[in-house]
Amino acid sequence: MTDRIPAAFYRGNRTVSVEWTRPIPPGPDEVAIQVAYCGICGTDMHAFHGNMDSRVGFNRILGHEMSGTIASVGAKCTSFRPNQPVVVRPLESCGACKACEAGHLHICRNLKFLGLDTDGAFQSVWTVPAHTVHVLPDGLRLDHAALIEPMAVACHDVRLAGLRHGEDVVVIGGGPIGILVAFVARLAGGTVLVSEVNPHRIAVAERLGFDTVNPRTDGLESVVEERTGGKGADVVFEVSGTQSGVDCMTAVASARGRIVMVAIHASKPTVDLFQFFWRELRLIGARVYEREDYDRAIEIVGSSADIADILITDVHPLAKIQQAFEALDAEPSAMKSLIKVEPD
Amino acid sequence: MTDRIPAAFYRGNRTVSVEWTRPIPPGPDEVAIQVAYCGICGTDMHAFHGNMDSRVGFNRILGHEMSGTIASVGAKCTSFRPNQPVVVRPLESCGACKACEAGHLHICRNLKFLGLDTDGAFQSVWTVPAHTVHVLPDGLRLDHAALIEPMAVACHDVRLAGLRHGEDVVVIGGGPIGILVAFVARLAGGTVLVSEVNPHRIAVAERLGFDTVNPRTDGLESVVEERTGGKGADVVFEVSGTQSGVDCMTAVASARGRIVMVAIHASKPTVDLFQFFWRELRLIGARVYEREDYDRAIEIVGSSADIADILITDVHPLAKIQQAFEALDAEPSAMKSLIKVEPD
Repeated sequence: MTDRIPAAFYRGNRTVSVEWTRPIPPGPDEVAIQVAYCGICGTDMHAFHGNMDSRVGFNRILGHEMSGTIASVGAKCTSFRPNQPVVVRPLESCGACKACEAGHLHICRNLKFLGLDTDGAFQSVWTVPAHTVHVLPDGLRLDHAALIEPMAVACHDVRLAGLRHGEDVVVIGGGPIGILVAFVARLAGGTVLVSEVNPHRIAVAERLGFDTVNPRTDGLESVVEERTGGKGADVVFEVSGTQSGVDCMTAVASARGRIVMVAIHASKPTVDLFQFFWRELRLIGARVYEREDYDRAIEIVGSSADIADILITDVHPLAKIQQAFEALDAEPSAMKSLIKVEPD
Repeated sequence: MTDRIPAAFYRGNRTVSVEWTRPIPPGPDEVAIQVAYCGICGTDMHAFHGNMDSRVGFNRILGHEMSGTIASVGAKCTSFRPNQPVVVRPLESCGACKACEAGHLHICRNLKFLGLDTDGAFQSVWTVPAHTVHVLPDGLRLDHAALIEPMAVACHDVRLAGLRHGEDVVVIGGGPIGILVAFVARLAGGTVLVSEVNPHRIAVAERLGFDTVNPRTDGLESVVEERTGGKGADVVFEVSGTQSGVDCMTAVASARGRIVMVAIHASKPTVDLFQFFWRELRLIGARVYEREDYDRAIEIVGSSADIADILITDVHPLAKIQQAFEALDAEPSAMKSLIKVEPD
């Protein structure tokens, strides 16, 4: 293994600095991955904005929406071979807390999220626990594979919704995760409407064949009422993280409708709990993913090239990562920006 | 059938006036019931306070937590015989709306609640659709039977929670419905803690053998933490209808904990939606009951005399119904007040 590799360190102050570092040799249960691509996640942007300084510090390599190939493996990792294409499910559970005991490893009380609580994939060699690695099928493009992590989020959300064929679905918020949720919900047989205010994102949703509504101009509630013959949406995904999204989610749900809470609401919005009582609504919290969601996401990304082609709006070399973060801030038409970590 | 009967009319202005009225002869699909007892529900109190004037008007006979015996039956109601002891499931669905179509008759969009949207059981003869009538087993005391309606609410709440044997349960709010929920949850195998601030209600809960906590003095969260070895409650019933109850419900729930929304929140409280995401909590709205909940409630009231003996704190004759409503307002130690409708 080479003795120095480029890595992008978050240094605070909206600065991501590419510097040389040393690759970490894999321990017995670890593998070292040559990183190919790594997407910039909303959470990375959140960190870039300084909102997670106490968690990530100023010496952290971010990045977790990645793809790559096996570089070297620890002594016990006999099932991998060099150059295998892989992605990482970036969760490390404690195995001992009450959530882990109950089998909910992905919401472990002491969960370490790789790339936030440990160093991540904005470096050319990333060493991770072997149990986090999923091998990719032949022929899956590595740039597309960087979409597997957010696709797995969407697979988890749709699975927890218990979505059945023919159900009416509303996705509130058409950013990258919202679009992926809409995509997976449609594959599961849902009739999907995407609610979004940004015209660039509305255009992306429509390019993917989704019906859309701009709730600021069209009145989401009446559109849903009309589309569903007065029934309302069987399943609502709240992906906006806004008070108005929370107001809409109860307004558009059918009797016994399921609302999946995908967004991270840092402040506490007001919620129309009366509607939960009156129409026996259900709210389902959903966070990250489990193993089976990754398996499904790999399947989907491998078989649906158009979603990656449309969602990935730009690719930057690692050397330009600072500009990539800044561009995502400035450019309302960007959806998913990838960093090409491995040099040409 | 007698040509005049006493009935208590809500006349507005915190006034319930006992007057003579004419019994309604049952239509072909109806039965007339000689009302024995009828409890005063929280909803009746709400109407008494003038909060439902636009719904109930000023010429309404309230009352639905009732028991009685068959007085006479319509031509098509051949399965009933005179003097059979019965209770009424006071719901009349339209059968045509989208909720009814989906099989959720009890949350019909045009649901008529008998005793609010139609005249109720604070009259000595109550005529109702035959499909709302449940026949009681022999030996079930009619004063106890007036508890079946609220018990059915509790059965519905616990059923929708999917409560499993051995799960940790917290009931937030120890009024009549909260206590009944706690009772049914314990029968279902739950380990139940009741959170309540009123010392009289705490005493009632303890007389029924429940562990209790006063969240104003004891810190509900730390008590639950300690009782469950840090896990939190598998199932939480929010029955308080308060902002502090809503704050507690998310704080005490375990990973993937289920929170049942029993209370009617007329205003929109703030809700810690982040916790729904972070710990994949679930919120389950629950309203009234379905047929099977009544069947279960009849079984429970028939086999557990102590719950009725302890919860029914006083019985008043129909002639004293005004005083009974006023006393419920004034007396913090009252739990369930019954009106004895049939004269001695």
